Amino acid sequence: MTSTSIQDGLELLIHLERRGKPSLQRQLLEQVRRAILQGQLAPGRRLPSTRALAESLGISRNIVVAVYEELWSEGYLIQRRGSGTSVADDLPSLPLPPRPAPAGTPRWLPQRPTALGISCPLPPDVIAFQPGGVVIAPLPLGVWNAVWKEATACLPPTAIGPTAGDLELRAALADYLRRTRGVPCGAEDVLLTASAMQALELIARVTLRPGDLAGIEEPGYPIARHLFGTRGAQIVTTPVDADGLRVDALPGGSSAPLVQYVTPSHQFPLGGRLPIARRLALLEWASANDSLIIEDDYDSEFRFDAPPLPALAGLDQEGRVAYIGTFSKVLTPALRLGYLVAPAPLRQQIVLLKRLGDQHPSWPTQRALLAFIRDGHLERHIRRMRRHYAEKRALLSKTLAPISHLAQLRGLEAGLHVFLELRPGLDARRIAQAAFARGVVVTLLDAFYAGKPDRGGFLVGYGGLEPEKIVRGARILAEVIEQEQ
Amino acid sequence: MTSTSIQDGLELLIHLERRGKPSLQRQLLEQVRRAILQGQLAPGRRLPSTRALAESLGISRNIVVAVYEELWSEGYLIQRRGSGTSVADDLPSLPLPPRPAPAGTPRWLPQRPTALGISCPLPPDVIAFQPGGVVIAPLPLGVWNAVWKEATACLPPTAIGPTAGDLELRAALADYLRRTRGVPCGAEDVLLTASAMQALELIARVTLRPGDLAGIEEPGYPIARHLFGTRGAQIVTTPVDADGLRVDALPGGSSAPLVQYVTPSHQFPLGGRLPIARRLALLEWASANDSLIIEDDYDSEFRFDAPPLPALAGLDQEGRVAYIGTFSKVLTPALRLGYLVAPAPLRQQIVLLKRLGDQHPSWPTQRALLAFIRDGHLERHIRRMRRHYAEKRALLSKTLAPISHLAQLRGLEAGLHVFLELRPGLDARRIAQAAFARGVVVTLLDAFYAGKPDRGGFLVGYGGLEPEKIVRGARILAEVIEQEQ
Repeated sequence: MTSTSIQDGLELLIHLERRGKPSLQRQLLEQVRRAILQGQLAPGRRLPSTRALAESLGISRNIVVAVYEELWSEGYLIQRRGSGTSVADDLPSLPLPPRPAPAGTPRWLPQRPTALGISCPLPPDVIAFQPGGVVIAPLPLGVWNAVWKEATACLPPTAIGPTAGDLELRAALADYLRRTRGVPCGAEDVLLTASAMQALELIARVTLRPGDLAGIEEPGYPIARHLFGTRGAQIVTTPVDADGLRVDALPGGSSAPLVQYVTPSHQFPLGGRLPIARRLALLEWASANDSLIIEDDYDSEFRFDAPPLPALAGLDQEGRVAYIGTFSKVLTPALRLGYLVAPAPLRQQIVLLKRLGDQHPSWPTQRALLAFIRDGHLERHIRRMRRHYAEKRALLSKTLAPISHLAQLRGLEAGLHVFLELRPGLDARRIAQAAFARGVVVTLLDAFYAGKPDRGGFLVGYGGLEPEKIVRGARILAEVIEQEQ
Repeated sequence: MTSTSIQDGLELLIHLERRGKPSLQRQLLEQVRRAILQGQLAPGRRLPSTRALAESLGISRNIVVAVYEELWSEGYLIQRRGSGTSVADDLPSLPLPPRPAPAGTPRWLPQRPTALGISCPLPPDVIAFQPGGVVIAPLPLGVWNAVWKEATACLPPTAIGPTAGDLELRAALADYLRRTRGVPCGAEDVLLTASAMQALELIARVTLRPGDLAGIEEPGYPIARHLFGTRGAQIVTTPVDADGLRVDALPGGSSAPLVQYVTPSHQFPLGGRLPIARRLALLEWASANDSLIIEDDYDSEFRFDAPPLPALAGLDQEGRVAYIGTFSKVLTPALRLGYLVAPAPLRQQIVLLKRLGDQHPSWPTQRALLAFIRDGHLERHIRRMRRHYAEKRALLSKTLAPISHLAQLRGLEAGLHVFLELRPGLDARRIAQAAFARGVVVTLLDAFYAGKPDRGGFLVGYGGLEPEKIVRGARILAEVIEQEQ
C-alpha cells in the first residue's frame, strides 16, 4: 500500500517537526484535534486506518494508535466495529474560523476602489420595472434539453479551443448576423465574448490610454461611461434626440473622440432609432476624424411595427466599426454569451488580451449555442419572444394611455423597456418615491446622464414581468402621476 | 399583416433614398442583386412575397414585382408555383468579400502589440511531449452525461448570477479545498474564474502598477512573467533548487517584491515540492515585507508516492496568500474553470474588476460542476487519473532508465510532466532538434528562464499521450541523446 492510495486528506492537515518539541505524538494529537474543532474534519467523517496514516506520515503506527485512543476518550472520535474510526457525529457544530484578513491596508492593495453599483436587491413582492429584465420560459424545455444533450453527448476535448471561439459556432453566428442584421462577415470576423459589456471592456482596454477622448451618448449607457473612465479617458458627451445620437453635434478635429459609443438600433435609454442619413453621416465623421465607432446593436432583435435598418457595420466601407451584441436579451444573461465583429487589427489585439484572461466560453456552452442556432431554434425563439414582448408592451401602453396628457411613452419601436417622459413641471423623483412607497420600482432617467438632464421621466422595463404585474404596476404608476399633478 | 411578421431579413439589407436618384426601382434592383452576389442572400433562399416586402419597405407593390421579374430574367431568382420566389440554386458560389480593414494604422490602435506565443500547431503524426497535456477519456461517459442532464433539466435563470460564482458551487468547492488541500475557507472565500491564469491576471491587474516589483521563480512560469510585464512591473527572479523556491534568496526591504508568485506543490517547471520549513519561512518573509504571495497550487492533485504538504494558504495567519487552482488538469481546459481563494479585500477588488468583464462562468457549466463535485465524481475521477498518470509516468521512467548516466528524470513526485536534466556538456538544443527531425517534440528548459539558464534539459509532458506513444517517443529520445554523447 503506497500513500497514493490514501485519499482522506487528513495527512495534509498535519505537519510534524521531527527534531522539535513537543513530541510527535503531542503534535499529532493537537493538530488532529484542531482540524476537528475548525471543521476541516467534519462530524461523521471517517479517518484513515492507523496503519495508513502512520505510513503516509512516515511515523510509527503506535503513535497514531495512541492519538486515536486519546481523541476517542475525549469524545472527538468514535470507533465502530468493522467501520473504523470516525469523527463523532454529535459534536457541536463549530463555526469555521474566518479566513485571516490583512490588518490595515497592505501595500499591494490599491487605495481607491473601482466601484460601480450595477444592481441592488429588491424585496420579492415589489413590482420592479427594471430595464434589461427578460423571460426565457416561452422556450420549450424540450428544445433546451435537446441542444444540451447534443452538446454533451461526448466527452469534451482536452485542449483549449480558439480564443475567439469555436469555429463552427462563429460560422453559424456570422451567417445569422449576415442574414438578419446585414453585417457582412465570415466566421473569422466574429469573436465570442461573455457579453456585450465584456466586448466593450476589451475594446476600451485595447484602444484607450489615459487622457484619450471617449465619446458616449447623453443620456447614455452608464457602464460605457464607467468603463471608459476606468481607462483614464476623458468623457465626451453628445446629446441624443428622438432619433438617437445627434451626429451633427459630434465634435471634430482635435476634439473628436478617439472612440465613439453608439446604440443605433434602440438608443439606450431613450429608444430612438438612428435614421439612415445619420448613420451615413456618422461613418463620414469617423472617417474624417480617424475615429472608431463602437456599435452596440442593443435590442435590435426586438423591433415592433418598424422596418429594420442596416447595421452601421453593414454600411462601413473603411473598417471603422466594432459591432457588439449579446445573447443576454434573446436568451438569458446567465449563459454569459455575447459577440464582437470588428476590423481585423482590433480583433487581433483583443484576442491577445483575451488569451491572458478568460480565453473562450466553456466548450459545452458554445456547442449548445451552435446547435441552437444551426437547428433554427434561435430565430424561432426570437419570433416567439417578439410576439411575447409585443403583447406586454401593448398592455403597458394601453394601461398608461389615460395619462398621456401627463406622461408620454417614447421609444416604442424596439426594445424591452420604454421611456416614460413626464410633462415639464412634474417632479420625477417625487413620483418615483411615491411609486416605491406603493411597491412599484421605476428607474429615474437622471441616472443615465453624465451632465444635467434636459428632460425628466423614468425607464419602465417590462420584459421580465408577468402581464398581470405589468397592468397592476402601471395602474399604480398612473395613479401616482395623476396625484402628483 | 404587420412588418413584425416579416422575418426574412431581406428588408434590412435594403435602404432606399426616397428623394434621391436613381429611382426607387433601380435602387431596389441593385441592392437585391448586390445582396445575392455578396452571399447575404444565399442560393435557394426564399424571398418574402412582393406584398410583404413592399409593405415593409413602404413602397408600391408594383416596384417590387418589377424588380423580382427583372432579377428572374437575369437568372438570379427562380419562381416556383406555390412556393414563391427564391434565389437561384445554381449560382456560382461567390466568395464573401472580406470585411473592410482600416488602411494604415488608425490612431485608435496601439502601436506595440502585446504578443505571447502560447502554442503552435504541430503536425498530427508527431509525438509531442507537451507539458500540460491531459486526457479525460477514463471518465465514464455516463457520468458526464448525468451531471449535464441534471444541470440542464430546467430552463436557466434569466438574471445574472453572483460575480464570484454560484454560491452552492463555491460551497462545494470550499469543502473540497478544506478537505483535500487543508485550505480553511468557506463559500464566500472562493471566487470562480475561467482558469488559474485568469485568476493570476486579475490579481496582477488589481495589485500591480508600473514600476512595482513582481517576483517569479527562476526558472518559472513564463505566463506569470509576461502577465506581470504587461502591468509594467519590474520582474524580480529568485532561483529554485530541487526543493522549489530558494526562500532564503528572496530579496527583502526595498528590494522585496510586492507580489511573489510561487508553485509550491510542484514547482513549475522543475518539479520540486516546497518543504514545510521553507513554506513557513516564505510566510515570515511576506509578513516582514508586507508582500502578497500568489500560491499557484499547480498539479497538487497528482502526487505520486509522496506525502501531501499543507497549502501555504492553510498555514497563512495574516491573510497574505492568494491561492489559485484550476480544473484544466483534473478535467479539461475546454471547460474554462478555475478558482481563487484570497484575502477578502483583494477578492472584493477582483469582483469589481470581473463585474466589468466576463462576470461568471456560464450557469449550466457551473451547475454541472456542482453536480460533479457534490456527487463525489470529482474525487473519484482524481483517484482514477492518479493511477492512470502514475502508469504513464512509470512507463516513461522505465524507458528512459537505460540512459540515466546521460539524463536524469527530476520532479517525479507530482505533476503530468518531468524534467529530463542532461549531463553537463550535452547540447539540449541540438538534441531537441535531432528528436524533432525524428518526429518527437520536447520543450527546452531554456524557455522558462528570464535570465541565463543554470542547467540544461527538457520538459517531457506525458499526460496527454497514449502509452504506446510514450514508449516509442521516449525510445527515440533516448537514442538521440546517446548519439549526441
